[in-house]
Amino acid sequence: MAKPPQTAIQPTRADDYPEWYQQVIRAADLAENSPVRGCMVIKPWGYRLWENMQRALDDMFKATGHQNAYFPLLIPMSFLEKEAEHVEGFAKECAVVTHHRLEPDPDGGLRPAGKLEEPLIIRPTSETIIGATYAKWVQSYRDLPILINQWANVVRWEMRTRMFLRTAEFLWQEGHTVHATAAEAIEETERMINVYADFAENWMAMPVIVGSKTAAERFPGAVDTLSIEAMMQDRKALQAGTSHFLGQNFSKAQEIAFQTEAGDREFAWTTSWGVSTRLVGALIMTHSDDDGFVLPPRLAPSQVVILPIYRDQAQRAEVLEYVASLQKELMAQTYAGLPIRVEVDDRDVRGGEKKWHHVKRGVPIRIEVGPKDIEKNSVFVGRRDQAKSVGLPRAEFIQTIGKTLADMQQNLFDRALELRESNTVDIDNEAEFRKFFTPKNEAQPEIHGGFARCYFADEASIDALLKELKVTIRCVPRDHNDVSGVCFATGRPAAKKAIFAKAY
Amino acid sequence: MAKPPQTAIQPTRADDYPEWYQQVIRAADLAENSPVRGCMVIKPWGYRLWENMQRALDDMFKATGHQNAYFPLLIPMSFLEKEAEHVEGFAKECAVVTHHRLEPDPDGGLRPAGKLEEPLIIRPTSETIIGATYAKWVQSYRDLPILINQWANVVRWEMRTRMFLRTAEFLWQEGHTVHATAAEAIEETERMINVYADFAENWMAMPVIVGSKTAAERFPGAVDTLSIEAMMQDRKALQAGTSHFLGQNFSKAQEIAFQTEAGDREFAWTTSWGVSTRLVGALIMTHSDDDGFVLPPRLAPSQVVILPIYRDQAQRAEVLEYVASLQKELMAQTYAGLPIRVEVDDRDVRGGEKKWHHVKRGVPIRIEVGPKDIEKNSVFVGRRDQAKSVGLPRAEFIQTIGKTLADMQQNLFDRALELRESNTVDIDNEAEFRKFFTPKNEAQPEIHGGFARCYFADEASIDALLKELKVTIRCVPRDHNDVSGVCFATGRPAAKKAIFAKAY
Ligand SMILES: [Zn+2]
Ligand SMILES: [Zn+2]
Repeated sequence: MAKPPQTAIQPTRADDYPEWYQQVIRAADLAENSPVRGCMVIKPWGYRLWENMQRALDDMFKATGHQNAYFPLLIPMSFLEKEAEHVEGFAKECAVVTHHRLEPDPDGGLRPAGKLEEPLIIRPTSETIIGATYAKWVQSYRDLPILINQWANVVRWEMRTRMFLRTAEFLWQEGHTVHATAAEAIEETERMINVYADFAENWMAMPVIVGSKTAAERFPGAVDTLSIEAMMQDRKALQAGTSHFLGQNFSKAQEIAFQTEAGDREFAWTTSWGVSTRLVGALIMTHSDDDGFVLPPRLAPSQVVILPIYRDQAQRAEVLEYVASLQKELMAQTYAGLPIRVEVDDRDVRGGEKKWHHVKRGVPIRIEVGPKDIEKNSVFVGRRDQAKSVGLPRAEFIQTIGKTLADMQQNLFDRALELRESNTVDIDNEAEFRKFFTPKNEAQPEIHGGFARCYFADEASIDALLKELKVTIRCVPRDHNDVSGVCFATGRPAAKKAIFAKAY
Repeated sequence: MAKPPQTAIQPTRADDYPEWYQQVIRAADLAENSPVRGCMVIKPWGYRLWENMQRALDDMFKATGHQNAYFPLLIPMSFLEKEAEHVEGFAKECAVVTHHRLEPDPDGGLRPAGKLEEPLIIRPTSETIIGATYAKWVQSYRDLPILINQWANVVRWEMRTRMFLRTAEFLWQEGHTVHATAAEAIEETERMINVYADFAENWMAMPVIVGSKTAAERFPGAVDTLSIEAMMQDRKALQAGTSHFLGQNFSKAQEIAFQTEAGDREFAWTTSWGVSTRLVGALIMTHSDDDGFVLPPRLAPSQVVILPIYRDQAQRAEVLEYVASLQKELMAQTYAGLPIRVEVDDRDVRGGEKKWHHVKRGVPIRIEVGPKDIEKNSVFVGRRDQAKSVGLPRAEFIQTIGKTLADMQQNLFDRALELRESNTVDIDNEAEFRKFFTPKNEAQPEIHGGFARCYFADEASIDALLKELKVTIRCVPRDHNDVSGVCFATGRPAAKKAIFAKAY
């Protein structure tokens, strides 16, 4: 007989990290696979988290001068043909609409009918359709800048999918801006990657490295792609957000041109930037443990859950009254400038099962309240980032709730940073690089590797090595690039140091 | 030469109502047609309005116990085949995805490749895909009710489109709920049509009639469809929201069944309900006038716009300082429980042009502030629902701003109700009915008709008459149906009175 599980999630991270990830999603009731290939259903608890992320990001976009708008889901096929790199980057994974109705087929089923003159693509990203619109809006320097964001769904026909990390359809936001000068567009590109880094670190409690992508890893059509890269608990990198300086590539392809103050006609400079429901996957893999999901308090749909405990109807009335007043007092407290979000779970479910339900869902703080706690005017408090629960005087707990949540948020960030720092190494030779990225057991690879910081001469010369080890250049970090060195693989002089890692 | 226009919008409502509608949208910068057939671009001002609508509705859905979730955009074709009426209702207007990539064609362009085994439909509505998911979620009576809403885009391949009112792609919300009993599901259907009526009347300032659709006008597959119907200024009806009691039709087709407390297996009872960006069209046609858009204060993205007026840089500094303090004081006031939304327009644009810009955009209150106003400590105030502007002492204006906005909101509602009441008639014979719905000039039909309240025996017997006059039964109102009468067309005994109208 198998040993009884010691943790709420089976397998554990150490046993089978990819399967652990799926089981956390299931146990926390965040999402599930749908009957449609590669598409997921985002369930209420997962969607509330996404709504909190949206709200925070949207406020940051508006605070930096952006407005929301909405552009069509469908893109004429000919629009994709205009920018050569762009079509190459997206043509292989497009959902193509070719008909506009269904008609009965001879077998009693249905078949597509009403063939379209020109096929339509479901947007994989909206540079082309938005650019075509901007071309009409932009006439003069007075029309610039255009600073617009869109919240939308997109479809990329991925062959291997994994919930939140890579799905055929996903939800995201895409910013698309137009500027009169290259300098302004570059400033915007940097502003928005900083917004993403701010959000990742201060809301998600997920430390990130900001840097530039190398040519091979850039967005198709971009001049420069900035990204934020985070380390997951299996030491793989996850690209959590990107901001692209598109130069004049799209404006030339789409004729986004304007008359300058001096009267000349010039092509505009554009940017685009986006984050997606992939952030939910990043959040799961950054903080969760072998008992399930762990939510950073700032994004948690419920920051506190109260579990009333009673034996009979008389106790029930007394406990629920106490719980209601406790909830009210907690909701009058604030954390990070907002009222505390408190949920009461009075479902008719056994106490142990109910507690573990909320552990697995990642609620930051659980409070159990029974007749004895009421007598002592205390509460029994469990913090999701600590193993054991403690009894606390009610008044003290209420007065310190904001500070407790702030401590937890900081604690999660520190823990994630510590993991990254202790798994980041400087490597200056190929042998060490190979060793770092090679699992001990090829057939059942254990968690290994991390971030390797290495000088490199050029991408082409190390391409074969990276392919062999399944390693990619994550980014050239904007810090630590003030001196030059020697390429770890070729020994040639190198001006840049990059982060190398296996990645999602 | 033509006379110079007397109004900001040309043509006027009386001259050419449909064209007036398009011109209001253009002048208010709400939306525009896109390069994709039948799809529109929702521009920032229009999208901010939609965001305000979403926020208010979402709060109401949550207050009535619903949660948001997200289901796939794409639906396998076979799912549509399951419910016979449903497929008939939607098959004629589906966007069908048949391929999953593009490849170079011999002419240097692209062509669809990677044919799908089963075509996928872009959701025209999500009963089938959500139902398939619910079938997995529902096992026992303990799993019920399920109360979920989704904010999403949908596609219906309409042949004749009009911005906001009827577009191939539109944004909406769709609630989908599952219940253990018919009574509970019916209660939910009614609860949600009441939420819509509340939103229409108290946020949009748009009076609506709540009633049931007749069999021919029901949602494909529904047992009962409730709707809210509003009268536009051309006296046509607009269906602004629907709530469907689906009985067990979908649960039987999709096997949404549960074990009862007694241990029996029963099919569940489902509902669905939705409103869309069509509401923006309804808002435009309810309140706007020949000078452009008129926004009800509760939904206005900006409730007050301040227009600083100055001649030189010295004046500019003084005026802007005064304006900033005025803005701050106004934002400290509240209307309908929220801080007043105040915009300052300091663009370098001529005063008259700037004023008309905001008139056409429908901002409820405009304030002009120049050196003379500062001297007198007064503000020059224009209300969008009144023709002339007035000077007011600054303190009085600030103290009464909340009340002023509330008055305007009420005034818009009263005006719309008055229009409806004065164009609603009881008709008991066919001759009068024909006269009511026949324009004086067939070639250039003027605004005519309205709501006719008539007893009717059954739909079939009056079908030809309604088709001839292009009139539809809007609903059987839930009020005024306590007595019976005689069918206006057939003279037969009739138990029900309906609202008849031409409609959008
Ligand atoms: Zn490109
Ligand atoms: Zn049906």
